[in-house]
Amino acid sequence: MKFFFQSLFFIFLFCLTVTSCSDTKKPIKSKTDIKVDSLLKLMSLEEKVGQMTQLTLNKVFRTKEITEHTVIPKKNLENSIVKYNIGSVLNSVNHALEAGAWRNVITQLQNATKKTPHNIPVLYGIDAIHGAGYTLNATLFPHNIGMAATRNDALVKQAAQITAKEVRASGIRWNFDPVLDVGRQQLWSRFPETFGEDVTLVTNMGIETIKGYEGDDLKSVNSVASCMKHFVGYSAPKSGKDRTPAYLSDIELWEYYLPQFKAAVNAGAATIMINSGTLNGVPGHANEYLLKTVLRDQFKFKGVAVSDWEDIIRLHTKHKIAKTPKEAVKIAVNAGIDMSMVPSNYSFYHLLIELVNAGEVSMQRIDEAVGRILKLKFDLGLFDNPYPEKEAIDLFGQESYKNAALEAARESVTLLKNTDHILPLSKNKKVLVMGPGANSHACLNGCWSYTWQGQREDLYPEQEVTIVQAIQEKIGTKNVIDGSFSDFKNPKNFKTDLINKNAKNADYIVLCLGENAYAESPGSIDDLTLDANQIELAKAAIETGKPVILVMTEGRPRIVSSFVDNIAGVLQAYWPGSQGANAIADVLFGDYNPNGILPYTYPRATGDLLTYDHKFSETHKDLKGNKPAVFYPQWEFGFGLSYTTFSFGEIQVSSKEIQGNETIKISISVTNSGKRDGKKAIELYSKDEYASIAPSVKRLRKYKKIALKAGETKTVTFQLNAKDMSFVNQQLQRVTEPGNFRLIIGNKQTVINYVK
Amino acid sequence: MKFFFQSLFFIFLFCLTVTSCSDTKKPIKSKTDIKVDSLLKLMSLEEKVGQMTQLTLNKVFRTKEITEHTVIPKKNLENSIVKYNIGSVLNSVNHALEAGAWRNVITQLQNATKKTPHNIPVLYGIDAIHGAGYTLNATLFPHNIGMAATRNDALVKQAAQITAKEVRASGIRWNFDPVLDVGRQQLWSRFPETFGEDVTLVTNMGIETIKGYEGDDLKSVNSVASCMKHFVGYSAPKSGKDRTPAYLSDIELWEYYLPQFKAAVNAGAATIMINSGTLNGVPGHANEYLLKTVLRDQFKFKGVAVSDWEDIIRLHTKHKIAKTPKEAVKIAVNAGIDMSMVPSNYSFYHLLIELVNAGEVSMQRIDEAVGRILKLKFDLGLFDNPYPEKEAIDLFGQESYKNAALEAARESVTLLKNTDHILPLSKNKKVLVMGPGANSHACLNGCWSYTWQGQREDLYPEQEVTIVQAIQEKIGTKNVIDGSFSDFKNPKNFKTDLINKNAKNADYIVLCLGENAYAESPGSIDDLTLDANQIELAKAAIETGKPVILVMTEGRPRIVSSFVDNIAGVLQAYWPGSQGANAIADVLFGDYNPNGILPYTYPRATGDLLTYDHKFSETHKDLKGNKPAVFYPQWEFGFGLSYTTFSFGEIQVSSKEIQGNETIKISISVTNSGKRDGKKAIELYSKDEYASIAPSVKRLRKYKKIALKAGETKTVTFQLNAKDMSFVNQQLQRVTEPGNFRLIIGNKQTVINYVK
Repeated sequence: MKFFFQSLFFIFLFCLTVTSCSDTKKPIKSKTDIKVDSLLKLMSLEEKVGQMTQLTLNKVFRTKEITEHTVIPKKNLENSIVKYNIGSVLNSVNHALEAGAWRNVITQLQNATKKTPHNIPVLYGIDAIHGAGYTLNATLFPHNIGMAATRNDALVKQAAQITAKEVRASGIRWNFDPVLDVGRQQLWSRFPETFGEDVTLVTNMGIETIKGYEGDDLKSVNSVASCMKHFVGYSAPKSGKDRTPAYLSDIELWEYYLPQFKAAVNAGAATIMINSGTLNGVPGHANEYLLKTVLRDQFKFKGVAVSDWEDIIRLHTKHKIAKTPKEAVKIAVNAGIDMSMVPSNYSFYHLLIELVNAGEVSMQRIDEAVGRILKLKFDLGLFDNPYPEKEAIDLFGQESYKNAALEAARESVTLLKNTDHILPLSKNKKVLVMGPGANSHACLNGCWSYTWQGQREDLYPEQEVTIVQAIQEKIGTKNVIDGSFSDFKNPKNFKTDLINKNAKNADYIVLCLGENAYAESPGSIDDLTLDANQIELAKAAIETGKPVILVMTEGRPRIVSSFVDNIAGVLQAYWPGSQGANAIADVLFGDYNPNGILPYTYPRATGDLLTYDHKFSETHKDLKGNKPAVFYPQWEFGFGLSYTTFSFGEIQVSSKEIQGNETIKISISVTNSGKRDGKKAIELYSKDEYASIAPSVKRLRKYKKIALKAGETKTVTFQLNAKDMSFVNQQLQRVTEPGNFRLIIGNKQTVINYVK
Repeated sequence: MKFFFQSLFFIFLFCLTVTSCSDTKKPIKSKTDIKVDSLLKLMSLEEKVGQMTQLTLNKVFRTKEITEHTVIPKKNLENSIVKYNIGSVLNSVNHALEAGAWRNVITQLQNATKKTPHNIPVLYGIDAIHGAGYTLNATLFPHNIGMAATRNDALVKQAAQITAKEVRASGIRWNFDPVLDVGRQQLWSRFPETFGEDVTLVTNMGIETIKGYEGDDLKSVNSVASCMKHFVGYSAPKSGKDRTPAYLSDIELWEYYLPQFKAAVNAGAATIMINSGTLNGVPGHANEYLLKTVLRDQFKFKGVAVSDWEDIIRLHTKHKIAKTPKEAVKIAVNAGIDMSMVPSNYSFYHLLIELVNAGEVSMQRIDEAVGRILKLKFDLGLFDNPYPEKEAIDLFGQESYKNAALEAARESVTLLKNTDHILPLSKNKKVLVMGPGANSHACLNGCWSYTWQGQREDLYPEQEVTIVQAIQEKIGTKNVIDGSFSDFKNPKNFKTDLINKNAKNADYIVLCLGENAYAESPGSIDDLTLDANQIELAKAAIETGKPVILVMTEGRPRIVSSFVDNIAGVLQAYWPGSQGANAIADVLFGDYNPNGILPYTYPRATGDLLTYDHKFSETHKDLKGNKPAVFYPQWEFGFGLSYTTFSFGEIQVSSKEIQGNETIKISISVTNSGKRDGKKAIELYSKDEYASIAPSVKRLRKYKKIALKAGETKTVTFQLNAKDMSFVNQQLQRVTEPGNFRLIIGNKQTVINYVK
C-alpha cells in the first residue's frame, strides 16, 4: 500500500517538474533525472547534507552481536538516521552476520527512513571483495590476484555474479568493489586485492567484475552497484605501507593507473571510491584535477564519488593540507567528493551545513552530489522497494556456487616447480603435511573473510576444509602424518626432533608456508622476504632428506630464494578462498591438471623488483660489457607449469601489415603434446621495436584460456589492431607509432609492420 | 714565439668580426664571444663536428702503459686528432698515470693540433671525483657521501681546490665533477658519489665544489672547469641499478632533483653532463624539454653540455628510441647535446656531417654547440697556452694536502653507537682487528681511485695505511692481533676456530666490514642487506663474547639490523679516502673526537627505505589505531655521537613573524657540557604545519659546524627568510604559503608565523 502512495508522490513530482521546466534548450532528461530534480527541489539543506553522509553500522546499532531478531533501539535510529536524514550506512559490526540478520538490519534502517521528510531510503554499502565476505556462509572465491592467474575472464565474471546475488540476498545493494589498482608495488598489503602487475589484465578483469556485479539493470535481484577503487595511484605507495604517499610520473599514471578507470567508466560502473593516500603530494580527496578534469570532464563519469574511511577529516589530521576540519570538508566537497564515509560522527554533516550557509560550498555542488546519490538509489530500485526482496533471498548459498569457487581456485593454482615430475603425488604413499598454513582457514581466505582481517578461524563454515583436512579426505587419514603444529602467530612452535621423527615415516613432505590473512594497514611489512621463522622451518624440512613440496598460500610474492632451490615441487595458491584446500589437494594428487600462470613477477631479491614490462635498458650490458643480473626473477610473469606438455605452431597473421584502423587476425595452433587433458592460457605479447618513449621489452595485449584433450590441437585466434599496441607518449597522448612490432606467443615470434 | 703569432691571429680575427658586425641591435658581445664568432666563420663543417667529438685516450694512444717519455706514434695522432680535428679527449688507459706522464700526453696532443687548420687546442677531461684519482699519488679525499657527513662547506671547498690544483698540475683543465644527483635511492651504485639524501646539503656542497674547482678565473693554474652531472634524474633508477630507468613526478623533480642544478648554473658552472638513463621513459640525451626549455631558457645555462659515455649511440642500441645510429645523433644534437663522448670511434663525426649536409641538423645548432666549446677553451686559457703550465706543476702533492684529507676524513667519521662509552679504546689493551676491510685500501678509497673500480691495491701509495696498519702505528704492533685474513672477494675465508683463538688473547675486537670499492654499473646489487658472509663473520665475532667495535667502510648504508644490537660500538667511515685509516684510528683511540653526522637515513629493513623528509602520513596511526613501524630506521639522518656532550639553550628568534621578504635571525646557544673539546654540526630544520602539498615532517634548511672547548658556550645564528622554507606546489611553482612553521634545532623547537 505504501508503494502505491510513494508512486503517486513521484507522479506528482514528475508533473511538478515538467510544468516548471520552461528552458527548452537543455538536453532532454531521463525520467530518473526528472525525479531526482524534483526531489532535490523539495529537500532542505540538512536533508541534502544528510544524504551525503555515510555512517558505519556501529554508530547506529551500538551492539556487537546482531541476529535476525535483534531490534535496534528506537532512540538510536531516531538520533542517527531520522535526525540527520542519513543517506548511507556501511560495514558490519566486528564480523560477518547471517544473511537473515542482515535483512533484519536493512529492514529496520529502511523503516526508520519512513519518519524522514521525503522517505528517502538508505543505501547500504559493504566490502564484498572476493565473495559476500560479511555474510556468514557466503561463497568465498580466490582473491583477485588468484583470479588473475586463471587468465579466465568468464570465471571472473561468474564469481562477481554469484557475489552480487549473495550480497543482494543479504539486503545490500552496493559493493565497494572491484579494486582497479594495478599491483606493481609488491610490498603493499592490498596487493592480493589487485589483478596483478599488468594493466591489460587489470582492465579486462576489472570490467568483467563490474559487469558481473551490475548486470544489465541495477534493479535486478541479481545485481548490486559496483564501486571502482581507489582513484587513483593508491597501489603505488613509495614505502609499500598502506595509505602512504605515492609518487607517479604523469606517463606512468596514464600508462598503468588510469586506463582501467576509463574503461570501467565506459563499462558503466555506478560509483567510485577515492584514494586515501597522496599522489605526488596531493591527497586523493583533494585532487580537483583528477576528480573533475580527468574523471568527470575527460572520462565522463556520472556516478557517485564516495570517500574512503575517514578520509575527509584526514586532510586535516593526517595529510596536513587543511588547517581545520572545516577546511578539510570544504576542500574535499569542492574537489568533487559526493559522499563522505565519515563514518563515526556527524562532524562532516555539521561542518558542511556551515560551509554552505557561509557560501564556501555552493548549493550547486551540493545538488550535484545529492543528485548523483539519489539517481543511484532510483537506479537500484530502492524507491520502488527498499527492503530485501523475496526473490533475492532464495539466491543465497546455492549449491552451484561451491563448484564455481572450486573451479576458480583450481584454475588459479600455479605450479612453479616440478623437479623430475615429483608431482602429482601418489595417493598410496605417506605424506607429512606441515607448516603454519597446513591447518588454517585464514591463509586460504585472506582478508575480508567473515572479518576485516580474516583471521577468525571460528567463523569459517564447518564443512570447509584446511589443506591437511583436504589431503586427509583425498588419500585417507592413515596416509597423512599431521604436522600442523605451528601457526602463523607462533611459527617457531616447532621442534626439529619432531619434524625428523615425522619425516622418517613419510615419503613426501607437503610444506605449507606463506602469509596469514591480513587486510589494509595491519598487513604492512618491511621486508618482502618470507618470514625468517618460516625459512628456518623450510630448512628443517629440507634437512630431513625427504622430498619437499612447497604449497604457498600468500597474498604477496614473499621471497624464497634462500631455500627454494632445494625444494622439489612448488605450488602457488595465492589466497584461494573457501574451496582452496580442495583445489590444492586436487592438484597435488593429480585429480586436476594445474593451469594457473603468474599475474606478477615473482622476485628473487628484495632489491630487484622490476615488473615484466620493464624497459630494454634494464637488461642491457653493464659498462664492463657483462649482462648484469638486472632482471633475474625467481619466476616470470606468465610462468606456470602443467602435468601435460603443449607445443605451438608458427604464428599466422592475416596480414604482415596493419594499415590505419584495420584489424588483423593473429592465430596459432596449440597442441596438447602430452598424455593428460589440460587447460592452457595463451598470451599474445607485443614488442614495439623503436618508439619515442623507450619501449618495454614486451607488453601483454591479449589472452585466452583453452582446454585441450591429450593429443588435441586447437587454433587460437586473436584480433589485433594498432590501438591494441599503443602507448602513452611524452604529450600524454595514447598513440601507436608506425614501425615494426614483434608479436610473441609462447616460444614463437613474428614481426608485423604498422603503417599509419 | 708561436704564442705571439697566435695572438696576432686573434687580433686579426677580432678586427674582422668588429668590421663585419653591422647589426647594432644585438647585445654587445664579450671579447671572447667575438673571438669565438670569428673563429667559427673560418671553420669548415668537418672542423666543427670534430670539435664536438670526444675520444677516449685509448683510441688515440693505443698503449696500456704511459710514462713521461712514451711517444704517441705519429700515425695515431695523424689518424685521430689531426684527421678529425678532435675537440676533446678523456679518460686514462686502464689506470692512473704519473703527473709527468699526463703532461707528456697533453703536450703531444696539443702539438698535434698545430697541424690542424686553426690550431684549436684539445680540451682534456677527466673524472677526478674525490681528488685527482687518475693521477698516481694524488690526494684522495672522502667521497661526497662522507664529505656531506662533515656538514662543513669549507672543507668541501678546500678539497675541491686541492683537486683542481692536482688535476691542472697533470696538464688537465676539465673535471667531470661534481655529482649533483641527490642520493635518495640507496641501492644505486653511485650513491657514495652523492652528498646524500637532502637537497639543501647537495645544493650547498655542490656549489662549494664548483667554486673550489673554478675559482674566480678558469685561466688560473688553481682552476679547472667543473661539470655538473648528471642532468637529471640519474640517481633515481627504479631498479636501483646504474643507468636504468628512473620515474619521477614533476613535483619530485622540481623539489629534489632540479634546484641544485639551477643553483650551480647561477654559481657559474662551466659544463654539464647528461643523464645516461631514461626519465619517465625519455632518455636524458633526447630530452629536449629538459635540455632546452629548463636548462637553457629557464636556468640560462650558457656552457657546454657533454654526453656521458657512448650515450648517443645508445639512443639506438639501448633505449630504442632511434631506429638507426644516424637518427640517434640527430635526436641528441637537436635536443641540445654539444659534445659527444663517443668515445671509441668516429661514427658520431661521420653521421653528424651527413645530417648537416642533408639539412636534418642545422648549421645554427652546430655553431651554437661549437661556439660553447670554443668559448670554454678560451676561458680556460687553452688558446693562450695549451700546455701544462710550469706554475701548475709545483702545485702537485703539497704536504698540506695530506692534512686537509685527514681533517676531512676525521670530520666525516660518524659514531653511530657507543654502548657504555666503550669508545674511545685504551691504547694499552689488546685489539683483534679483523674483517675484509681491515687490510684494504680499496674499501677506504672506493671508486675512481687510481682505477675506475678502485680495486688495484698495488697502485695505492706505500705510505698510505690500511686500518690494521693505522692501528698498529697508533698502539704498537704488540697490542694488535692481525686478523685480516679475509678480503671482500673471499669473505668466507675465515675459520671460527681461528677467530676464537685470536679473540681469546684480545680485549676488544675491531671488526671491519662494509663494501669493497666499486664504480657505476659493476657496483649494482640486488639486496641492500650486508653480504651474508659478512653477517656470518659478525656473528662469529659476537659469539667470542669479546666486545665488538664495528667499523664500516661502505658507499651505501648496507643493512646490519640482524646483528648490530649485539655490537658495542659502531663507526661509519663511508669511503674516507687516502687518510681514512688514520682518521678511523684517531677516533677509535680517542685522539680525535668524532663529529660526523649521517647524510642519509640508515635503514633497518629492505622494505623500509624512506628518507628523513617523508610525509607526516608515513608516521600516522594505522587503521587499527596503532602507530605502524613505517619510519623506524636503524639510525636517522643527522644522527652522530660524540665523546663529549652538548646542550642547547632555547631557540631565540629576532621576530616571531616573517613578513614578506624580510629575513629574521634564529639563534641558539650551544654548550659543550662534557669534558672533551669537540665539534658539533648544528642543523636548523623547518616544518610547515599545513600546506597545499602535504608537508614533510621536517626539512633541513641551514647548518653550521662549530668547535667548542670543554665547558665552552657559543651562540649560533642563522638568517632565515620565507624563501628558505619554500616548497614546490601543484603548479610547480616554488612558494611559501602563509602560516605557522615549526623551527627545530637539536632538541629545541619554536613556532614562527609567515605573513605574505
